[in-house]
Amino acid sequence: MSTDDPSSVSRTRVRRETRQRVRAVYPAPVPFIQRAIPPYEMLEEEQLVSVEHHADRILQEIGMEIRGDAAALRLWKDAGADIRGESRVHVPLGLARQIVKRSAPAEFIQYARNPDRSVLIGGRATVFAPAYGPPFVCDADGGRRYGTIQDFRNFVKLAYMSPWLHHSGGTVCEPTDLPVNKRHFDMLYAHMTLSDKPFMGSVTSAARAADSIEMCRLLFGAEYLDTHCVILGNVNVNSPLVLDGEASRVIRTYAAANQAPVCVPFILGGAMGPVSTAGALAQCFAEAVFCVALSQLERPGSPVILGNFLSSMSLKSGAPTFGTPEPPLAYFAIGQLARRLGVPLRCGGNLCASKLPDAQAAYESASSLWPAFMAGANFVLHAAGWLEAGLSMSYEKFVMDAEQCGAFHVVGRGLTLDDNGFAMDAFQEVGPGSHFLGSAHTLRNYETAFFDFELSDNNSFEQWSQEGGHDIVWRANQKWKAMLDAYQAPVIDGATRDSLLAYVAHRKASMPDMNY
Amino acid sequence: MSTDDPSSVSRTRVRRETRQRVRAVYPAPVPFIQRAIPPYEMLEEEQLVSVEHHADRILQEIGMEIRGDAAALRLWKDAGADIRGESRVHVPLGLARQIVKRSAPAEFIQYARNPDRSVLIGGRATVFAPAYGPPFVCDADGGRRYGTIQDFRNFVKLAYMSPWLHHSGGTVCEPTDLPVNKRHFDMLYAHMTLSDKPFMGSVTSAARAADSIEMCRLLFGAEYLDTHCVILGNVNVNSPLVLDGEASRVIRTYAAANQAPVCVPFILGGAMGPVSTAGALAQCFAEAVFCVALSQLERPGSPVILGNFLSSMSLKSGAPTFGTPEPPLAYFAIGQLARRLGVPLRCGGNLCASKLPDAQAAYESASSLWPAFMAGANFVLHAAGWLEAGLSMSYEKFVMDAEQCGAFHVVGRGLTLDDNGFAMDAFQEVGPGSHFLGSAHTLRNYETAFFDFELSDNNSFEQWSQEGGHDIVWRANQKWKAMLDAYQAPVIDGATRDSLLAYVAHRKASMPDMNY
Repeated sequence: MSTDDPSSVSRTRVRRETRQRVRAVYPAPVPFIQRAIPPYEMLEEEQLVSVEHHADRILQEIGMEIRGDAAALRLWKDAGADIRGESRVHVPLGLARQIVKRSAPAEFIQYARNPDRSVLIGGRATVFAPAYGPPFVCDADGGRRYGTIQDFRNFVKLAYMSPWLHHSGGTVCEPTDLPVNKRHFDMLYAHMTLSDKPFMGSVTSAARAADSIEMCRLLFGAEYLDTHCVILGNVNVNSPLVLDGEASRVIRTYAAANQAPVCVPFILGGAMGPVSTAGALAQCFAEAVFCVALSQLERPGSPVILGNFLSSMSLKSGAPTFGTPEPPLAYFAIGQLARRLGVPLRCGGNLCASKLPDAQAAYESASSLWPAFMAGANFVLHAAGWLEAGLSMSYEKFVMDAEQCGAFHVVGRGLTLDDNGFAMDAFQEVGPGSHFLGSAHTLRNYETAFFDFELSDNNSFEQWSQEGGHDIVWRANQKWKAMLDAYQAPVIDGATRDSLLAYVAHRKASMPDMNY
Repeated sequence: MSTDDPSSVSRTRVRRETRQRVRAVYPAPVPFIQRAIPPYEMLEEEQLVSVEHHADRILQEIGMEIRGDAAALRLWKDAGADIRGESRVHVPLGLARQIVKRSAPAEFIQYARNPDRSVLIGGRATVFAPAYGPPFVCDADGGRRYGTIQDFRNFVKLAYMSPWLHHSGGTVCEPTDLPVNKRHFDMLYAHMTLSDKPFMGSVTSAARAADSIEMCRLLFGAEYLDTHCVILGNVNVNSPLVLDGEASRVIRTYAAANQAPVCVPFILGGAMGPVSTAGALAQCFAEAVFCVALSQLERPGSPVILGNFLSSMSLKSGAPTFGTPEPPLAYFAIGQLARRLGVPLRCGGNLCASKLPDAQAAYESASSLWPAFMAGANFVLHAAGWLEAGLSMSYEKFVMDAEQCGAFHVVGRGLTLDDNGFAMDAFQEVGPGSHFLGSAHTLRNYETAFFDFELSDNNSFEQWSQEGGHDIVWRANQKWKAMLDAYQAPVIDGATRDSLLAYVAHRKASMPDMNY
């Protein structure tokens, strides 16, 4: 395993100044958001019951297929499902939700190696994690290219440094310069050593999921893992209504180790689900509940997240679209359904289809993150960096998105309706027609009053023009470079590091490089 | 008055094709949004009572000044307020809200000269109107320059053509090439003849407000006006806690004619109000209620809108900031307060501080429009074109924002939870592991299933690159030009037009040009 490159030596004045600005606005980090404001309740009781009923009907009348995992089929049979043919699981009305309600925790802690960075998942907590899975990366200097392990490490560092991202994520980009069957070792090693935030493990095969958990045993201690969740695995359903055996084994592997699978139907309306949002919602909920229930059949009480990934489709091209108004409606509904079920919810992210971090990207992203937050999402994957329908990870968009996540820390806090908040003393002092700039109340509260977007330019047109007339992408480009320049790795125990390296070396040597 | 220039003669292939695309995606326009989904309820009963109580205390203990309008002071005195000194109105606790509750309509129709374009203001309706007031305009070709009457007409045309803007707005940009004291004639004439959507009148003086109403009498008939609201006037409070005599007379002029003033405190936290959001909110509500009550004292039962314009401040420069997380919290609260009071609410818009229609502008705008919509805003001014903290009207951002407004038509509709929505027939037909592309349900619903952003590029990276690798601003630039090319004025009765022209000519001749 190559060691990480030292950060660039050439440091221009601009870089230094930008770095100082970066430091200056860093507030004390919080490990996660605890929302003081309620989630948005869109549907009424009878409407929610109707969605649940249709999801139940899908599982009963159509059923889910589990292809090539006899143990999973047996678990469902023993639980009372009707297995038809080789692999079709028909679930009696309401059974899947009952299984979940019986044992799935409403919230759980994902422990980080730095205890101050452990996150609560569920309830009124919201956790932001970087984008997941892009094979490409891009930046304003070099454009778009295949991702490498160096890019991967860069994004782990940037997420580590951001006060607004609570989680290191998983496949922050595909390290395409490494063999497919060994990438997960390098990815996990990067998450474990370059950051001390919580992270996600491999899901591309049950063996790689097991490797991920094994590395966590080395990092946290084997006994610790049996009683503490330290890793998430994001598992996609093969929508519609299929869970392939590898996916079901990955769910079971995480659950058996008391770690948390994130069960995510991936539905592009009109392709993997119906074009109508209500139908896609019911399907999405059915598939997710089915997978969450499987985790509970494998190990009752194990932590799990109910996910959803819904997208609409361009009428012109059939391409997936983001930032459109249909997914928000599904988010709002599934937020309510998850709360009724009592399980943590993953949804949303700064999703977009744009190829550039332009206004299209930002409108789309905000129109995905706002409804996700209002829906009460507990775990927001893809919260930073996502571009081009998830095909590309953008350095500039990463830091731009992270700041947007920052603003939700303030939204989540709600209004402070106390004497200082209402500021009657300021009105008494200032009176009509004057200004509050020098009032005692202003001086007392000024520094913490407003969230300040570091990347936003709020100067006058004249000053902005004099300084070059740059757009936000230019400023974001300065910022991520300054952050990487200023990066300092968190301390890790040498023996732990050696044991991880030894495990990785041993496992890598045990198999040939493969690209599948 | 100069007639409007004919649209450009040179028509390239690109323009033609773009125009065809423009036409192809235009859906049947709706006059306004009727939300089927509930607004977001952030605060609980006792919290709302607390905000109301603090607003009442501000009006009682500090009071509002009305400077130079004896008639307004007399109205308040007769209503039971305590007038101290020359102009300070101290309102007994709760009185201002009582006056409003007693007679202000919860909703009203603003009639347009085309009856299909009349809008409902209040209740579950949302009306989008263009940005208001920018002295500058800008576009991607020529950059930023002072606005002219030609620009003004262009934006009236663009708003007229947009299916997602329900309202022609007011001062869509300042026609700085016309004398200040005569601009309102040309602006109103443009709204009245180049569009058939509802519009706003002058508020810069009571005499100009009276001119605006007089022109409406010519357009709609004098008797009609006394029983039908056909014009809005957007009046800013001189926050903190001052209503200058001109503003109070403008409110009374509109109210006396049974037309609707929009009463808008303009508060930049830390300057015209306290830095704490709860305090700014209470102040904003107090000032707005005071002005709304004045309209009811002038003419009980006359239509009126409770507005608010709250912005935060950059800690670095003291400049106003937009898209920050504090105003949304105020929007959510004031939405609830307006519903309790039973008056229509103006808030939000596609607000931003960016100098360019870049990602900063879009993040900021979406983070203003989303919470405004969720708060239940009934009248959303500044919904399209606003750039640079309101100093500039952008052609490109205008069409970009308008599409974003379009998406909220779908969000507002909510989920359709009927048999077709749940699509059980599609699941029966398709089953696990197949796709829905050719299913009967998809074919039946495909064309109306998803909102399609015309300006978003959802194509593959390769196709997008081949087509030039443009950002959304490039596409927006194509679009507004194609729209102006395709513009056709709505028919107007010749006699009405002549009477308007005669009135304008007569009034213009009656006074010298002045630039204040």
